[in-house]
Amino acid sequence: MPPPNNPVPSREPGLAEALFRPRAVALIGVSDDAGKTAGRPLPFLRKHGYGGRIFPVNPHRATVQGEPALKRLAEVPVPIEHAYLLVNTPAVEEAVRACADAGVRVATILASGFAEAGPEGVARQNRLVAIAREAGLRLVGPNSLGVVDTHTPMALTANAAFAADTLLKGGLTVISQSGSQIGTFVSRGAARGIGFAKLISVGNEADLSVGEIGLALADDPETQAFLLFLETIRKPEQYAEFAAAARQSGKPIIAYKLGRSEVGRELAVSHTGAMIGSDAAAEAFLHHHGILRVDHLETLFEMAPLVVGRRPVTRRDRSVGVVTTTGGGAAMVVDRLGTLSVDVAEPSAETLARLNAAGVRAQPGRLLDLTLAGTRYEVMRAALDILLEAPEFDLVLAVVGSSAQFHAQLAVRPIIDCARHQKPIAVFLTPEAPHTLQLLAEHGVAAFRTPEACADGIAAYFGWRAPPQHVPTDDTLLVAAERALQDTSGRVLNEDQSLALFEALGIPTVPRIVIGRGRERTEPLPFPFPVVAKILSADITHKSDLGGVALGIASLEQLAEKVRDIVAAVSAAEPEARLDGVLVQPMESGVSEIILGFRRDPQIGPLVMVGMGGTMAEIYHDVVLRVAPVSPEEAAEMIGELKGIAALRGFRGRPTGDLEALAQAVARVSLLAELPGAAIMEAEVNPLIVGAMGAGVIAVDGVVRRTSS
Amino acid sequence: MPPPNNPVPSREPGLAEALFRPRAVALIGVSDDAGKTAGRPLPFLRKHGYGGRIFPVNPHRATVQGEPALKRLAEVPVPIEHAYLLVNTPAVEEAVRACADAGVRVATILASGFAEAGPEGVARQNRLVAIAREAGLRLVGPNSLGVVDTHTPMALTANAAFAADTLLKGGLTVISQSGSQIGTFVSRGAARGIGFAKLISVGNEADLSVGEIGLALADDPETQAFLLFLETIRKPEQYAEFAAAARQSGKPIIAYKLGRSEVGRELAVSHTGAMIGSDAAAEAFLHHHGILRVDHLETLFEMAPLVVGRRPVTRRDRSVGVVTTTGGGAAMVVDRLGTLSVDVAEPSAETLARLNAAGVRAQPGRLLDLTLAGTRYEVMRAALDILLEAPEFDLVLAVVGSSAQFHAQLAVRPIIDCARHQKPIAVFLTPEAPHTLQLLAEHGVAAFRTPEACADGIAAYFGWRAPPQHVPTDDTLLVAAERALQDTSGRVLNEDQSLALFEALGIPTVPRIVIGRGRERTEPLPFPFPVVAKILSADITHKSDLGGVALGIASLEQLAEKVRDIVAAVSAAEPEARLDGVLVQPMESGVSEIILGFRRDPQIGPLVMVGMGGTMAEIYHDVVLRVAPVSPEEAAEMIGELKGIAALRGFRGRPTGDLEALAQAVARVSLLAELPGAAIMEAEVNPLIVGAMGAGVIAVDGVVRRTSS
Repeated sequence: MPPPNNPVPSREPGLAEALFRPRAVALIGVSDDAGKTAGRPLPFLRKHGYGGRIFPVNPHRATVQGEPALKRLAEVPVPIEHAYLLVNTPAVEEAVRACADAGVRVATILASGFAEAGPEGVARQNRLVAIAREAGLRLVGPNSLGVVDTHTPMALTANAAFAADTLLKGGLTVISQSGSQIGTFVSRGAARGIGFAKLISVGNEADLSVGEIGLALADDPETQAFLLFLETIRKPEQYAEFAAAARQSGKPIIAYKLGRSEVGRELAVSHTGAMIGSDAAAEAFLHHHGILRVDHLETLFEMAPLVVGRRPVTRRDRSVGVVTTTGGGAAMVVDRLGTLSVDVAEPSAETLARLNAAGVRAQPGRLLDLTLAGTRYEVMRAALDILLEAPEFDLVLAVVGSSAQFHAQLAVRPIIDCARHQKPIAVFLTPEAPHTLQLLAEHGVAAFRTPEACADGIAAYFGWRAPPQHVPTDDTLLVAAERALQDTSGRVLNEDQSLALFEALGIPTVPRIVIGRGRERTEPLPFPFPVVAKILSADITHKSDLGGVALGIASLEQLAEKVRDIVAAVSAAEPEARLDGVLVQPMESGVSEIILGFRRDPQIGPLVMVGMGGTMAEIYHDVVLRVAPVSPEEAAEMIGELKGIAALRGFRGRPTGDLEALAQAVARVSLLAELPGAAIMEAEVNPLIVGAMGAGVIAVDGVVRRTSS
Repeated sequence: MPPPNNPVPSREPGLAEALFRPRAVALIGVSDDAGKTAGRPLPFLRKHGYGGRIFPVNPHRATVQGEPALKRLAEVPVPIEHAYLLVNTPAVEEAVRACADAGVRVATILASGFAEAGPEGVARQNRLVAIAREAGLRLVGPNSLGVVDTHTPMALTANAAFAADTLLKGGLTVISQSGSQIGTFVSRGAARGIGFAKLISVGNEADLSVGEIGLALADDPETQAFLLFLETIRKPEQYAEFAAAARQSGKPIIAYKLGRSEVGRELAVSHTGAMIGSDAAAEAFLHHHGILRVDHLETLFEMAPLVVGRRPVTRRDRSVGVVTTTGGGAAMVVDRLGTLSVDVAEPSAETLARLNAAGVRAQPGRLLDLTLAGTRYEVMRAALDILLEAPEFDLVLAVVGSSAQFHAQLAVRPIIDCARHQKPIAVFLTPEAPHTLQLLAEHGVAAFRTPEACADGIAAYFGWRAPPQHVPTDDTLLVAAERALQDTSGRVLNEDQSLALFEALGIPTVPRIVIGRGRERTEPLPFPFPVVAKILSADITHKSDLGGVALGIASLEQLAEKVRDIVAAVSAAEPEARLDGVLVQPMESGVSEIILGFRRDPQIGPLVMVGMGGTMAEIYHDVVLRVAPVSPEEAAEMIGELKGIAALRGFRGRPTGDLEALAQAVARVSLLAELPGAAIMEAEVNPLIVGAMGAGVIAVDGVVRRTSS
């Protein structure tokens, strides 16, 4: 149930209707050759039964593909809600202007050669947007293969896959940055009995974005879930509204996103003119908005029934119960689930007792293997009923062997008969069994064709989180942080100023004094020897490399000597650098070193990072990112996702680290997101030393960069 | 070409014939109910056209499924080459004895309840083997779903998938530890036009193993490649013979193996009664024998054409050239290839020039995207011809979009027309296009249904290595090592003895002296202060925890004091431990710390391991395993596979480590495999300190455990 009194974000009235249910469409520049890309939309609209009026517009021909054509858009006798611009790149601007003049509501643009094609293309694209904005015309694309609605029905698309004879209706709406993929989904779905509600190729998102289109469909009665095919994240603030509205309507969003590898990110850029963004940042962004991310292409539509009409599992110890008619088949899925850190649990003693009482001969073990019992309806049905009710399981995986191919009534029918249960069932069929997959799809059961996609879908389901609660702003801390910033100037804060800012946010920092350049400390230090001395300068990043650090200083005399050495060495190496003196602090040690980070990603916005410290952890790049700010609870979840967390959990007899204090520190540094005027661009505590349980944490070094000086 | 004069290992004459081409088979205990598991083999043999004689044997019935049955095997009037024992578990022993008495050549056993069912089952299974051995009868199973040959043809199987009407002939032979999977392959292959030569469910491998069956088929004219579905590795020495013979016949072996995760390994055990083995050890074993391992189920048969008739790529900088009719479709594969560390290269300037001269408008970039050129035969053909000839590519990936569904002549036909090229082509089709997949399969082209399997297959192909050359034994080192061992006694060597053994193998070790218990060192040390003192005892593993280690000792007096402290502390903590004195050595440091390991795996045999040292690397478990011994070249390859190798390659301005000396040390420790009598069970150097380039390595601590004392 949606929470009460939570206002639905604003969306443009009538936009969804103009996009997907226009009463009249114009095909501007439609080709006479139905085989050409620019000729396809006309036969596809006809073939799939579009019921509105279609106006071919072509200045060079009186007929197009045997239908009468108009020379100019202005001659169209009725209002056009949606025009598909099929002209080539140089002619797009004029066509958009014609749409603007004719009061067209939405224009979808096929041509490429815009923002993805260098600075000139960007300028071309900006001109289109300016013309459209002025006229209240909305644009899809450029680089869009079109807009499809199976219920209207309307196949306003140039994607060759729509040459298929039928277009299966369904409840999944696809919003894709790749135009060719809308065809992939339709053909792969059709073979499995999986239909779609709407499919839209958003191209460059010059105007209408994934987020705004999704928002316009949040209440669409035919859409049960959204599937996103993404190469990058554009206009993140519109995603936020989309995700919030979809959540209120109980419509999950599942995303497949390219760019897990460097080369994949590079391709996303060259292909669509998107900005490069870190994949980890995108992942944090999707997670923040409660959008599930899958790793395999087909998981995108195969897993949808796991989430449609459901909410994320909230308890922490999620686990899968498995029933199978083939040990080897189930092992393939379970083995992969293990590599994805999804727990496959044994049935409890109580559940085992119930199974045996129901005549299902159950052995203790992680798989309820029915091989010995034989594949029979009653056995499978009883097993499913009991596993679905068992409180130790959050999802039931049913694996069916060869009977799925020829005898669906034995082990597949009972799955269908249980499928309305509030606990989701995931099904993997080991044989090729297209009709059985179709049967399951028709009954809204999540059935997977490969063991890999099956495990991927289950892992994505278990990774599904409700968007985090809004983190309440702590005004006292923010005021203190602002005050700390007021005492500083320049783009980059020096180490002392950086630590002062972290201290203002409530993160314990190392005690320290600053010895001014050319000065000597004679009075006792406020902390015991041995101490560390470090050059203090916002201009120097690699202090050690320049002789700017001295460790293990044992006395005031030694300190004076080291201070002189440090200043001399750094001045010689970096004569231009501004030196603010020498920072002196005690040697600190603890259970483990951690890196805390904060930055404003150009695409995603503020992010907070926690990572294992030290050289090897840096090499292994063991970090976890989230959208900032985070609550201490979410920070604790981040910490739990670090691969090296064992180092803080009593590894090899070492003490356990103060994880609570660490979570607090992560949450505190994430508050930098809230500073007025987005004052901070980037900040890092490195290292944060984590003491043993109860001993807290202490920031030993750090750097802060302002957004502008 | 097979190397000359390399003898083919011995194999049992006539075994393959009895298994796959028997002139007469007996179905012992066959059920009258064709729907029951024990009833299926009769109709399956008939349906798929077995041409030999079939003798149903059933003591309780005169007819079975309408055919006359014999009461006892002894009544069968002709020699039976292959009997399928369909009786239940308690009756198996008697049936095996009947086969032995009747001179049957091979008996395949369906029943389960043997080695996988605890100690009693193991005893039952051992009795079967003993009976068979005495009579020269060979066994398949128990727990076998049967033996299939599509060319004979003979479907001697109880797997329900063989209810399919046709059985597609092909060149792939499946040897599977999972019986249900042979059905999975047949049904999934059939839907794609991929046929098999032979399929055999080996069950528990009580007698005939994967290796021995493979060996028997190494020269099988109908087998082009072997596909293994594995849960564990049994009888590794027979694999070695199989792999060598298959290699000589030019028949690649591809394996899918369960057990990547803990829970997967656990299931493999409970399911088939196999021993748990480390997955990394199994991976090293497969690699050692030149067996490719795939990660996805369908990759197993989809990738076969990449390797049939080919040899592993030998050059180091392998890379993929990509041509596509859909940017988004290719990006899915290439993004994944990036995560699998497979290089997708740009065409060279020369290749680009050739493409443009041939009318293929090629932009610089990693993808040769034909979207703008339009999908036409001539363009695709020219692009493929040029990429296949381009020396910078070792494999060409062709991705075809929606045209694959309805217009195979445009972009798929040119692939088929190029497929005989010596360079392999991998194909990914973005739409659902079963007929096109079939067309490609018929022409021996490797076509993948999912982008994930496509990337998996390419990565497996690039990971394919010829089995390493035999590492020549260095007798001088082995003699020295044996001598070092002679000076010791006990199961576990103390640190000084362990280092002496490593030194004998030619691994530089830290200089050291031993101060006997109760003695004091007065003469100068042979190395400078500061030094380390450590308790010397084979009985103590965690020296530091017991106060058994003192660091940074600066003088002889301090040393004497610390030696007393150490002995006192350890004696108090472990009064029973035998103390051999105190070991004194200089403090050593270098670029990085490494762990070297050697052990005899109970399944696989001797293994050598190299791993990054230090706590965090240990937590991240960054280690690489190989079958021992290895050459320095193979050791260098192992080192290159460490994720943390950056630490040795000049990370953050640190010096580069002496990788050559490290490789030498890995190879040297691996020689422990060659010590006569398999003298060493386990050995570890931890840490081995790697100095800067040219500075060598030095073993600082280590432990060695004998196979028996």
